[in-house]
Amino acid sequence: MRAVWFEGREAMMIDQRELPHRIAVVGFRGHEEVAEAIRNMTTRGAPSIGAAAAYGMCLAALNKKDLDDAARTIKAARPTANDLFYAVDRMLADLRNGIDPIKAADGYAQEIVDKCTRIGEYGNALIKDGDIIMTHCNAGALATVDVGTALAPIRKAWGDGKRIFVYASETRPRLQGMQLTAWELSQEGIPHSIIADGASGHFMRKGVNMIITGADRIVANGDFANKIGTYEKAVIAKELKIPFYVAAPVSTFDLSTKNGDDIEIEERSENEVTMIGNVRIAPAGSKALNPSFDVTPAKYVTGFITENGILKPNEIHRMRTK
Amino acid sequence: MRAVWFEGREAMMIDQRELPHRIAVVGFRGHEEVAEAIRNMTTRGAPSIGAAAAYGMCLAALNKKDLDDAARTIKAARPTANDLFYAVDRMLADLRNGIDPIKAADGYAQEIVDKCTRIGEYGNALIKDGDIIMTHCNAGALATVDVGTALAPIRKAWGDGKRIFVYASETRPRLQGMQLTAWELSQEGIPHSIIADGASGHFMRKGVNMIITGADRIVANGDFANKIGTYEKAVIAKELKIPFYVAAPVSTFDLSTKNGDDIEIEERSENEVTMIGNVRIAPAGSKALNPSFDVTPAKYVTGFITENGILKPNEIHRMRTK
Repeated sequence: MRAVWFEGREAMMIDQRELPHRIAVVGFRGHEEVAEAIRNMTTRGAPSIGAAAAYGMCLAALNKKDLDDAARTIKAARPTANDLFYAVDRMLADLRNGIDPIKAADGYAQEIVDKCTRIGEYGNALIKDGDIIMTHCNAGALATVDVGTALAPIRKAWGDGKRIFVYASETRPRLQGMQLTAWELSQEGIPHSIIADGASGHFMRKGVNMIITGADRIVANGDFANKIGTYEKAVIAKELKIPFYVAAPVSTFDLSTKNGDDIEIEERSENEVTMIGNVRIAPAGSKALNPSFDVTPAKYVTGFITENGILKPNEIHRMRTK
Repeated sequence: MRAVWFEGREAMMIDQRELPHRIAVVGFRGHEEVAEAIRNMTTRGAPSIGAAAAYGMCLAALNKKDLDDAARTIKAARPTANDLFYAVDRMLADLRNGIDPIKAADGYAQEIVDKCTRIGEYGNALIKDGDIIMTHCNAGALATVDVGTALAPIRKAWGDGKRIFVYASETRPRLQGMQLTAWELSQEGIPHSIIADGASGHFMRKGVNMIITGADRIVANGDFANKIGTYEKAVIAKELKIPFYVAAPVSTFDLSTKNGDDIEIEERSENEVTMIGNVRIAPAGSKALNPSFDVTPAKYVTGFITENGILKPNEIHRMRTK
């Protein structure tokens, strides 16, 4: 099963908010509902968001909606992930070139999976037998239709018989590390432990060979946005001389933005922090701030693992993203 | 109301596990129950643990128990906080010198409060009008009988009319930052926001003037143990040139331990990470690691704010702790 796919006349997705307790599948017949599913994080992870957006555009075309309107609606769902904009623009071009909507969107989703497979191969070359690897949030199959970005090299290394161990930081407030990454790892039998986000530095000091995360947007100077908490790990990794890799397909690169500080960072509801389920756990008189992402400057990145090989931050400007 | 006190023949404490939703007071008549209340975190925070331990020894004396036995039981409650051992040894000496048990324990608790008041005065001198301050976990009145260590300078600055703003990181897994520090700050009307632990670096990059935390143990070379997540903030603070202060009374200093790596770090149940209340939120096939503390090397500390003034890490060996 993939994280996002098309069936009959519906864009289908695993409702990732229900994991790990229940595998619930939902289907949508209109692009507005797909946009809402992106916004409310029924599906999440930059490449899966891109695939969902492609199917949203596909539905708009099948339903004979105004494509520019649909593109605006879908692009407005979340502000940070570059794949969202990339996928919508790709679909607009394909649809205007007369490509069949379902074929175009299915092609986009399959391309992501193929890219992730190549990311897994390139990244696997960096992993040695016995390595202890740390990741953050979920950049696994759920985040990327299938295979994963950060988890792709980990899966490949494990499949090749390397004895590895993975720390999955739980990733507050929405716990994608605990509920999605740990679930994916346990499905494959890959040895791992969940840790509180604040314990990352402690375990890095005790011995981690490599950190791999995904990314939501990588800009021209090599700065990148990813799940809140990524920046901290990158700074500590540099301090401790632990290699820090970012795994992402070229659809995540936004070369039109020069500097990470120009990336719009989504602020989500404070309730994601102050409440668990329907129960408020914070004091009545307190507010919370809830940025979904942080920006990590390029100087902390050892390399970007892409489907076209591993790039240093200062090599990004040479890449072709189209 | 204090966090820990003596009344009739009972050691009384606020049950901090019930905050911020309910102020529940519990009383104990035996030192074994006090040890259990320390272990299960009915009371927590190194200085409050010290006060509870003092009242535990007081109860053992009043109940005519073997004092060495009682000392062993109480010291075994938790392994990391130095105040626990310091308080028990102080009480043993006082009781053997014929000091009245209640008077000795009340004196110990009052001393903590007086020390915290002086810490507040020394620390306040570091705070400027308009400062943005970050803290972690709870080193407030609840953690120190009254007043606080890290929160003492913040209270004093606010009381003096300085317009300050405090970031309280929520402090997973037990959320003392969200549930105790934010509650104390909201009680005093001090402007603050709760943030996820992983968002600390993001907000430090946006602009923080100073970080203040408490400590559970500070050793001879200036390394210190504090709530898991402290080390990360200290590393990022150094990277961003943000002053990082540790506020603690001399009872927290353990000069018999040379190096932070020799501090025993308590490992608590993985259920604190994988469960919320009685509900498991982690996948069935995953385990968690749950160290309660981390060790921050001395090189990241700008200064230790004590009741005797502010010390640089390389000045610790000169201090007298008795």
